[in-house]
Amino acid sequence: MPVISSKALRMPASPIRKLVPFADEAKKRGTTIYHLNIGQPDIETPQSALNAIRNFDEKVIEYSHSAGNESYRNKLADYYNKEGITIHSDNILITTGGSEALVFGLMSTCNPGDEVIIPEPFYANYNGFSVTAGLNVVPVTANIKEGFALPPIEEIERKITAKTKAIIICNPGNPTGYLYSKEELEKLSQIVKLHDLFLFADEVYREFCYDGAKPTSVMNLKGIDENVIMIDSVSKRYSMCGARIGALISRNMDIMNAALKFGQARLSPPTIDQIAAEAALDTPKVYFDNLIEEYVERRNILVDGLNEIDGVYCPRPKGAFYCVAEFPVDSADRFCQWLLEEYSFEGQTVMMAPASGFYANAALGKKQARLAYVLNKDSLKNAIICLKEALKVYPGRDK
Amino acid sequence: MPVISSKALRMPASPIRKLVPFADEAKKRGTTIYHLNIGQPDIETPQSALNAIRNFDEKVIEYSHSAGNESYRNKLADYYNKEGITIHSDNILITTGGSEALVFGLMSTCNPGDEVIIPEPFYANYNGFSVTAGLNVVPVTANIKEGFALPPIEEIERKITAKTKAIIICNPGNPTGYLYSKEELEKLSQIVKLHDLFLFADEVYREFCYDGAKPTSVMNLKGIDENVIMIDSVSKRYSMCGARIGALISRNMDIMNAALKFGQARLSPPTIDQIAAEAALDTPKVYFDNLIEEYVERRNILVDGLNEIDGVYCPRPKGAFYCVAEFPVDSADRFCQWLLEEYSFEGQTVMMAPASGFYANAALGKKQARLAYVLNKDSLKNAIICLKEALKVYPGRDK
Repeated sequence: MPVISSKALRMPASPIRKLVPFADEAKKRGTTIYHLNIGQPDIETPQSALNAIRNFDEKVIEYSHSAGNESYRNKLADYYNKEGITIHSDNILITTGGSEALVFGLMSTCNPGDEVIIPEPFYANYNGFSVTAGLNVVPVTANIKEGFALPPIEEIERKITAKTKAIIICNPGNPTGYLYSKEELEKLSQIVKLHDLFLFADEVYREFCYDGAKPTSVMNLKGIDENVIMIDSVSKRYSMCGARIGALISRNMDIMNAALKFGQARLSPPTIDQIAAEAALDTPKVYFDNLIEEYVERRNILVDGLNEIDGVYCPRPKGAFYCVAEFPVDSADRFCQWLLEEYSFEGQTVMMAPASGFYANAALGKKQARLAYVLNKDSLKNAIICLKEALKVYPGRDK
Repeated sequence: MPVISSKALRMPASPIRKLVPFADEAKKRGTTIYHLNIGQPDIETPQSALNAIRNFDEKVIEYSHSAGNESYRNKLADYYNKEGITIHSDNILITTGGSEALVFGLMSTCNPGDEVIIPEPFYANYNGFSVTAGLNVVPVTANIKEGFALPPIEEIERKITAKTKAIIICNPGNPTGYLYSKEELEKLSQIVKLHDLFLFADEVYREFCYDGAKPTSVMNLKGIDENVIMIDSVSKRYSMCGARIGALISRNMDIMNAALKFGQARLSPPTIDQIAAEAALDTPKVYFDNLIEEYVERRNILVDGLNEIDGVYCPRPKGAFYCVAEFPVDSADRFCQWLLEEYSFEGQTVMMAPASGFYANAALGKKQARLAYVLNKDSLKNAIICLKEALKVYPGRDK
């Protein structure tokens, strides 16, 4: 029997899904689970997108263009221009989710064996995409006590070697919710320019900024147009994660042409989902106003609630819909599993994502977990009560 | 400015799309183009699939399971079992098109630098997927005079080195339409077993078999269960190329588990398209009976028509909806371009895919082109007239 590949062996299993069998068992026992473990929002997909799907009236579901439908790319360019990001539709490649955009971007720019620097904790699937492209992740640790701000630029610079090809950030960040300031991004842009690196920014949470904060896109950093690749997706913006429509965006036409060749090999992104994504661009501003209001309230309930629990610490993030909290426990992995396997309070429990999977060095996240505030306010309040009660009786609680 | 990757440089541009700018110019001049260059059928998508899309009534387009919806995988397993391919839903990973299935399969089994043997001419995107996975394609040339039958097994065996990890076939074949016999596949299975290789079979054209011929699936070859990976897709079967729903199928659970990790990294295949693909499984047999009848007539019009043109030779394939013909010309690349750039007959011309892109050694396909019989019979008849007239005046015609 032939052996599977070394990449397959290196490929990490999803840290979020490790707990799924325990959750399934809990459900079988009749326990209500508050799913704060995944970024699947409960927000309704905009009506315009759903209508576009229901009104699909072609007789054949044909391939679209490999770069995405021209009408969608034009309209998406308009969206960015309105957001203050000046680009042309030629700077946009429509992909199957943000995931494919990042893989195409990495494959187009980095050689196997190259290093990519990523502030940690980071979105766990960046590990998988790096393995896919044959790259080595070099983490720079951000500190929970500083709310997961960008680590000092000197620390990042010290990690740069002859093999470093790119820096990857997520802004606003998954899993931390941290929103990088313009100053932080400008510091990054200086070392990107000085060391001739590519800068990838996953900006899929752009719309989710709170307390009046405005996101700075890497596309607006001066003097590094050729270095910047922005990753985007409709998944979170329009609560249509299952549409799998993303985009790779760059002003570097060598990258765009290279990425298109990867795009041609896989023929096209999904056709009907693109039509829905294009229609979603008509979503009125009030949708987002309501969304932001809702998420701010949810965040406050969750973050305030967490910080009110004895021994728990959680910074208040300004973006996305996640936070990372530190718990007074022996191991967040064990705590999260215990919550599903052995615990319930009034028939309810909480599912969280242990943060160990978001760090290259799992030990750094040992006491931390990511919580997504993608449930309604009452559920979040109940989840907080569950956690508070759980920590009173959890056997591995810090003494 | 940082340089792009070596993979990006090696990545082939799509051979089919090279001619698109010339086609666009011809259209602008008002010329009608018969598109025999791509595998986008004009056949209507089954009503059940279209209805499922129009009846989508969820309020949120959520992620599906990374392996695909369980209901779809179960129903798909039933389909295979009815087709005589005995598998369980655990042997199925739903992917974003057959393309993703092949990439996941290659990534799960082969290491960068490994070699994959592919009978040529082969589907050009196998080159792109091999570059993506860092593999080297080792071609074994099939002969047009033998209708592109499997090359002698000794010739294939001679290509096996210490670096050979897999053999890839497409059956029925794109671009040749050749349907491998059970005997040919059994010969392949012997060397696969003897040399401990993986055998990938792209069987997306399974339903398209003519003249009473029945396809043999690699899943039914004895004694190589652990070596076999089958690639499938709804694109051609149900004329829903734009749905991007494929599948990786294997009884080797190490491969299934590895491929799932790649699947988890990209979260999920498209949700609504999966619902449509599941509904498509209800397509009545009469849909395929009509389809086969239609394609046989189209094939006969095209192949007979080609062979009636002086100097043209085209084997009559038993499967898929392509054929590769040899033309009495200096270069099929030049001939195909000339057809678009300089020629028209009564305001009409033909677009074909030069076969050079389907050979690792482009020179072998110099006088050949692939034609897809995806247009109605009248269009095919007109296309034949165009080609016949064109060859009378083409300046590069063989003397």
